[in-house]
Amino acid sequence: MTFVEGPVTVTVPATSANLGPGYDSLGLALDLRDELTAEVVPGGTLEVTVEGAGEGTVPLDESHLVVRSMRAAFDIIGKQPAGLRLHCRNRIPHARGLGSSSAAIIGGLVLARALVAGGELILDDDTLFQKAAEIEGHPDNVAPAFHGGFTIAGEDDGFFAVRTAVDPRVSVVVFVPATGVETKAARGLLPETVPHSDAAADAGRTALLVAALSDAPEHLHRATRDFLHQEYRRPAMPESLALVDELRADGVAAIVSGAGPTVLAFSSGVESAETTKLLARCPAGWACHALSVDMDGVRIL
Amino acid sequence: MTFVEGPVTVTVPATSANLGPGYDSLGLALDLRDELTAEVVPGGTLEVTVEGAGEGTVPLDESHLVVRSMRAAFDIIGKQPAGLRLHCRNRIPHARGLGSSSAAIIGGLVLARALVAGGELILDDDTLFQKAAEIEGHPDNVAPAFHGGFTIAGEDDGFFAVRTAVDPRVSVVVFVPATGVETKAARGLLPETVPHSDAAADAGRTALLVAALSDAPEHLHRATRDFLHQEYRRPAMPESLALVDELRADGVAAIVSGAGPTVLAFSSGVESAETTKLLARCPAGWACHALSVDMDGVRIL
Repeated sequence: MTFVEGPVTVTVPATSANLGPGYDSLGLALDLRDELTAEVVPGGTLEVTVEGAGEGTVPLDESHLVVRSMRAAFDIIGKQPAGLRLHCRNRIPHARGLGSSSAAIIGGLVLARALVAGGELILDDDTLFQKAAEIEGHPDNVAPAFHGGFTIAGEDDGFFAVRTAVDPRVSVVVFVPATGVETKAARGLLPETVPHSDAAADAGRTALLVAALSDAPEHLHRATRDFLHQEYRRPAMPESLALVDELRADGVAAIVSGAGPTVLAFSSGVESAETTKLLARCPAGWACHALSVDMDGVRIL
Repeated sequence: MTFVEGPVTVTVPATSANLGPGYDSLGLALDLRDELTAEVVPGGTLEVTVEGAGEGTVPLDESHLVVRSMRAAFDIIGKQPAGLRLHCRNRIPHARGLGSSSAAIIGGLVLARALVAGGELILDDDTLFQKAAEIEGHPDNVAPAFHGGFTIAGEDDGFFAVRTAVDPRVSVVVFVPATGVETKAARGLLPETVPHSDAAADAGRTALLVAALSDAPEHLHRATRDFLHQEYRRPAMPESLALVDELRADGVAAIVSGAGPTVLAFSSGVESAETTKLLARCPAGWACHALSVDMDGVRIL
């Protein structure tokens, strides 16, 4: 087991989970990427530098999420490097429901694997995905961060993820508020039980969403109606829910991205007139981006 | 508005709703057809004859479900015939969860429309579907009975149904018990609320089922796991649930068809070795059939 010489760089996409009715199962990779570069160095030092999102706020020690994920991969492979240098160029905003932690986890695992000659022989793709979902606690963001595209994930004996088709006409606009919401706080607002009729209606919309995304985007508005989480979380992100309401009333398929507070609206191409109109609705102080669906997932440069 | 001369015959497929997790939304048309022939006759008489399923038990008057559905269509079109003769050749078993009532409703509506010259100008397809779902009370069986194939149905402002792809490798085996269960009784066993985690898991499986049926049948076993109805209904159909359990333990994607008690197992072609093995597991006294997916829906002969 030997480490490769010189630095390795990976890029990993932002992801939007839930997509309305697909709570804890559906995820979509978006063309907004963090870039992580790491190198094994002599001596016992750990050197972490961050530019962009999280700069000046995230820890720069062993508790850094990319480092923790790299350590987990090295543990599975069976060899920790003496010293490690990591540089993160982060474009995915933190605590906004755009999968920054899943990007860090997938990026860290893939980066560590790529730093070991033959690392993928021990840490195969499924083992890596299982570990990523275990670190994250749920598989719905790590699946598209790893595979790209649109994924359906869940858990039975282990975590699973299946990638399905995305109509090439589909793009998105994300509306990112200036302040974040912690996923844990957002999860705390959900009820223990829901009406059976809501559960059934939600399953039906989730089914329709798979069909709509694959080749019938004209059904996206109807297909993105959620019955399981968004309304319950309104107190934690009233401005986001108000924007979702406004957009939906105008026929836009808008949802809360992941645990929020980012609002995601489906559109028909990053250069389309529809996208231009959506970007014009960006609330003051928010950051709004037109993004393609990312079909690559994590990439080693 | 004039009635056409001579008899008109329609055939309409059996349907399986729910398909595991897709409670009240998913439906699949099966190649087992009722054949209904009707004719407008002079005088004020109604003559109904039935052979096959329901023969000797269903009413032969205005309360017959095909007649009621025909009357509803004639009401919308604005003209009731003086006399009516109807003959039903029923192959879909009654009270078994195979959509016999939806077949009667769709068959009756389409038959009546075909008996009026230009009837489809007044009673268009969407109006017909809305009326069918209204008579049935839910859209999940009438949608595939009308359109054929695999459908995702629901309700918001009116009922909706979207047809999506079915992999040509997919067929089914139905295991039909000797005695039936009334849909109403089966519905009465469902709880008012379900755990949020069950609702989320169910939505994820429903999403996976759309993907699996469209082009990834290798995921059908995982995709047909239900969290919303089958277990709650076990007391009403213990033998059916026991068969589902046995089949699933052997890796077969088996579910309760509609409100039961028929068990449906997915297979890989009516002539396949897998189908032969499934048919060999038919319990004593049950009727078992290997069926293709019906891609036509209701047909006027």
